[in-house]
Amino acid sequence: MNACIRAIVRIGIARGLDIYGIYGGLQGLLDKRFEQMKARSVSNIVHRGGTCLTTGRSEEFREEEGQKKAARILKEEGFTGLFALGGNGTMHGMTKLQRYWEGQIIGIPGTIDNDVYGTDYSIGFDTAVNNAVEAIDKIRDTAQSFDRVFLIEVMGRDSGAIATHVGIACGAEIIIIPETTTDIEDVAAKINAGKRRGKTFAFIVVAEGDEEGDAAEIKRKLSGKIVEDCRISVLGYIQRGGNPSHFDRVLATKLGAHAVDCFFKGESGVMVGEIAGKLSATPLIDTISKKKVVDIYLLGLVDALSI
Amino acid sequence: MNACIRAIVRIGIARGLDIYGIYGGLQGLLDKRFEQMKARSVSNIVHRGGTCLTTGRSEEFREEEGQKKAARILKEEGFTGLFALGGNGTMHGMTKLQRYWEGQIIGIPGTIDNDVYGTDYSIGFDTAVNNAVEAIDKIRDTAQSFDRVFLIEVMGRDSGAIATHVGIACGAEIIIIPETTTDIEDVAAKINAGKRRGKTFAFIVVAEGDEEGDAAEIKRKLSGKIVEDCRISVLGYIQRGGNPSHFDRVLATKLGAHAVDCFFKGESGVMVGEIAGKLSATPLIDTISKKKVVDIYLLGLVDALSI
Amino acid sequence: MNACIRAIVRIGIARGLDIYGIYGGLQGLLDKRFEQMKARSVSNIVHRGGTCLTTGRSEEFREEEGQKKAARILKEEGFTGLFALGGNGTMHGMTKLQRYWEGQIIGIPGTIDNDVYGTDYSIGFDTAVNNAVEAIDKIRDTAQSFDRVFLIEVMGRDSGAIATHVGIACGAEIIIIPETTTDIEDVAAKINAGKRRGKTFAFIVVAEGDEEGDAAEIKRKLSGKIVEDCRISVLGYIQRGGNPSHFDRVLATKLGAHAVDCFFKGESGVMVGEIAGKLSATPLIDTISKKKVVDIYLLGLVDALSI
Amino acid sequence: MNACIRAIVRIGIARGLDIYGIYGGLQGLLDKRFEQMKARSVSNIVHRGGTCLTTGRSEEFREEEGQKKAARILKEEGFTGLFALGGNGTMHGMTKLQRYWEGQIIGIPGTIDNDVYGTDYSIGFDTAVNNAVEAIDKIRDTAQSFDRVFLIEVMGRDSGAIATHVGIACGAEIIIIPETTTDIEDVAAKINAGKRRGKTFAFIVVAEGDEEGDAAEIKRKLSGKIVEDCRISVLGYIQRGGNPSHFDRVLATKLGAHAVDCFFKGESGVMVGEIAGKLSATPLIDTISKKKVVDIYLLGLVDALSI
Repeated sequence: MNACIRAIVRIGIARGLDIYGIYGGLQGLLDKRFEQMKARSVSNIVHRGGTCLTTGRSEEFREEEGQKKAARILKEEGFTGLFALGGNGTMHGMTKLQRYWEGQIIGIPGTIDNDVYGTDYSIGFDTAVNNAVEAIDKIRDTAQSFDRVFLIEVMGRDSGAIATHVGIACGAEIIIIPETTTDIEDVAAKINAGKRRGKTFAFIVVAEGDEEGDAAEIKRKLSGKIVEDCRISVLGYIQRGGNPSHFDRVLATKLGAHAVDCFFKGESGVMVGEIAGKLSATPLIDTISKKKVVDIYLLGLVDALSI
Repeated sequence: MNACIRAIVRIGIARGLDIYGIYGGLQGLLDKRFEQMKARSVSNIVHRGGTCLTTGRSEEFREEEGQKKAARILKEEGFTGLFALGGNGTMHGMTKLQRYWEGQIIGIPGTIDNDVYGTDYSIGFDTAVNNAVEAIDKIRDTAQSFDRVFLIEVMGRDSGAIATHVGIACGAEIIIIPETTTDIEDVAAKINAGKRRGKTFAFIVVAEGDEEGDAAEIKRKLSGKIVEDCRISVLGYIQRGGNPSHFDRVLATKLGAHAVDCFFKGESGVMVGEIAGKLSATPLIDTISKKKVVDIYLLGLVDALSI
Repeated sequence: MNACIRAIVRIGIARGLDIYGIYGGLQGLLDKRFEQMKARSVSNIVHRGGTCLTTGRSEEFREEEGQKKAARILKEEGFTGLFALGGNGTMHGMTKLQRYWEGQIIGIPGTIDNDVYGTDYSIGFDTAVNNAVEAIDKIRDTAQSFDRVFLIEVMGRDSGAIATHVGIACGAEIIIIPETTTDIEDVAAKINAGKRRGKTFAFIVVAEGDEEGDAAEIKRKLSGKIVEDCRISVLGYIQRGGNPSHFDRVLATKLGAHAVDCFFKGESGVMVGEIAGKLSATPLIDTISKKKVVDIYLLGLVDALSI
Repeated sequence: MNACIRAIVRIGIARGLDIYGIYGGLQGLLDKRFEQMKARSVSNIVHRGGTCLTTGRSEEFREEEGQKKAARILKEEGFTGLFALGGNGTMHGMTKLQRYWEGQIIGIPGTIDNDVYGTDYSIGFDTAVNNAVEAIDKIRDTAQSFDRVFLIEVMGRDSGAIATHVGIACGAEIIIIPETTTDIEDVAAKINAGKRRGKTFAFIVVAEGDEEGDAAEIKRKLSGKIVEDCRISVLGYIQRGGNPSHFDRVLATKLGAHAVDCFFKGESGVMVGEIAGKLSATPLIDTISKKKVVDIYLLGLVDALSI
């Protein structure tokens, strides 16, 4: 996120804008926690995880009353545009705000889940997957030494994007995600068959939001069906954070720059993104009504890759 | 472990020994899974986590019958010495084996828990603590952005060594370990006081084996007593594995070399170690009957460090 | 590379092929260093840098005689297809081999320089840029503490791809690459202006193959023109190696799978790639006659980003 | 350094002191760049490399006049003690300052070179060695794939401490340091013998300050004497920086706490340290007149380890 904030601030200033940061997300807007950002305000953050503006959830904004209040504040303060970084929830909130405020709203997809329609990648996804992969590379050393089956839970409440990439990158036998139907018998059969073929250990990667349950639940369901019990590892918060990858920093910079561009072109009610290598602007309404699809091609490779 | 195996093999060979590796730990010994190790057998492993010899638990060896069988095999195969890498369980097993076999037994402390008496550090501890610290540095980015209390569980069934080092290194408000009495009211009071002093987030590091329970249990007990609910992160298996730190590689090399030295000096029934900067050999019986103490000085600093 | 080899071997076998690995690159082919690959031959390599098949340059293959010999060997051994991983040099060699051998030749772009026409990214680029970025993040700690100008040399004999991504990701003031004209006076003026605006330190990222010279040469030319002397850091070999990023592992897997697909479709004389999110096959002749262009959009952002 | 500053500030405040930070080192003292440090001033720095107080060299302080001025300023401002973090140069400066100022001076060893007499380890050494080891682990992937000899230069102008630890940890064939006599013929003979024994690649680790020259110079001298030319890698600034290891953070915390302790005990003209596991205070005069010795035991293992 920081690389994106830096790009908006510096490119905005270079092009003549006055830029204010809102601390603490939408609740911060309602609490008028603004601060003018100068070029030096965003020094030395391009390489840091998290966000220098902090963030937070807002119950108040969920209500129509809160949305109207936010619009009133933006108007009173004389703001003419709002750059909103976040995931599906943020884009949803922006479609509400649009009803009551006539300033230019430009969304920027920032969520590790990569489940926002309108961009191939959202900011944070690449780093999160690398974090998960690094963690699993470590578990591999243990798995190898001990001949074990590991059931590894990664983030993804509604989306298997992280699980799919992590699973392919770590050589998982099986990838379990919400977008596909999970057949526990089939999972067990594959693990047992792998053991018979001489595999000494196996990874199952599961997205937290699978319809058969999280890692603990799936372990319970597999119990007795596979030769040996599996160990669980829930990666959790370590998937976030850490210095971002170059991919995320470059993407964040491009999307920030493009957001400023869109502002000067007079666009509003759009989310910027990158689709098939091209910078894009998708109507906010599409980002919340359309569903991003999982990479079927990658999923189709898993069985052959783990023979 | 690999750096230690490499040191034993190469220094052993350089000094004229024939060295055999036993695959799969004590069960591997019972199953006669030996293989002669050449200098090239241990090429390219000095920087790898885990162990090239694999490991495993043995139910059979726990029984007197198994111990006698192991002794018989060692004798039949003509082995004159045994280097045993492991933690308290391994050292305990060696004291049993000693009863039935007259070869030279030399233990080497290898366990991430650092709970073996007879050495300041055991092989693997430094890497495990660095792994945990890196993971928590990532969580810090999230904690900072969201103003949260994090309850982080690290390894340590009977020992607070990892928790103590991790806690100091990560600036934890509170370190909860089995060696000290945990007072839940006191923990809650400290967290609340920190919030009042303006701390935006806090880390509590808890060893899995604390007498008040693991992280989930302690979270339950804290519930309602602290201003805001805490998040849990169980680091688990990612604490093992990964390329070892230089400290562990150098320690493993020194202890391996010293073990070969001890063998040539005719020592037996000892565990090598490093105490106050000096290579040492402690009777195996001491390693299992005496308890390593936790670093009280470090624990005493926590309150002042988190004002 | 390993993830790609693994994909070819396993998917190839799953689809009925017999796969042989050639050790030591084209010279290995001339020396008949083949070995049949089984599914288990590529176990436990998906996460490793380098290549399990080793590599090497071949003087012999550069001559027509060598190319004919290679063709003869491939024919005699009964091979029907060849998957060749490498950069521009490899693709060039394949266009030669095509003249004398009628088997199917399928190239796969694997070079950290990302300078091969016919794919948006080549295998290894993402990891190399992340390695460089991590190194520079460390240098940043020193630069910040000491108020210095750092001139950092990254790989790229003919291409500024690495330098451009590294420069944007690390917040460089200036990016110096072979594809654009370097004006030393302008470089000095920007550094001095940054100092005047209050910047405490600055990074200049230079591709090794810039027309004004490498980092040492450019430092010499800047000497006396900037307020304070700059320090040099040549990243060199640390840009290669290390566990690959998920991006590279996933890309390598997709390209390997696609190469096998292309083989079954009867294609030959092509290089697989991914262009704008779609798997592609570009005639080998195009990959060596056309030049990949640098990302002008990114370069255009540098000045505004470093105000 | 940051973990040490944090420890001094918070423990000092907890025990009733007013603590001021001096920005920019000794020159900062001469320029009166002080700022009172509160407990919150050192929030969120325990995990960061570099120093939040910045640093710098001072020509002015090298002259007697400058030393007197520093003493005058310390007196006028009413300071009663000075905690000085640094290497041999800093300790040397403190012995000068002592002559003109009667406040309590307590040195703390902070230098990656680990060449300060009076402590087993100085702050920063462990992290620097890990940084170097991680870099070389990456180079290993390349070395393995290409069968090469690598000559790697690490920091150490007068000291082989980094080179020795790095060399052992990375499995170097040869370690070249200023403390021992380097015999180029012998180096070449060992490399050639290793090749003959079937070693596919080799690492030579050289400290920058060896009497036979730096890596470039030694490469030149080896040229023609070894079978194949060697590649050079100068690690340089990447050895500094990066998030510190737990070892360094814990050591820095202990030494900071101990420094405050020493202040309350009325000690002056000493440098704190840890020797054989015990916190210590060594007269400053000894730290500059006595020389720390290199670990002969480790060096003695190199030949056997690389058979």
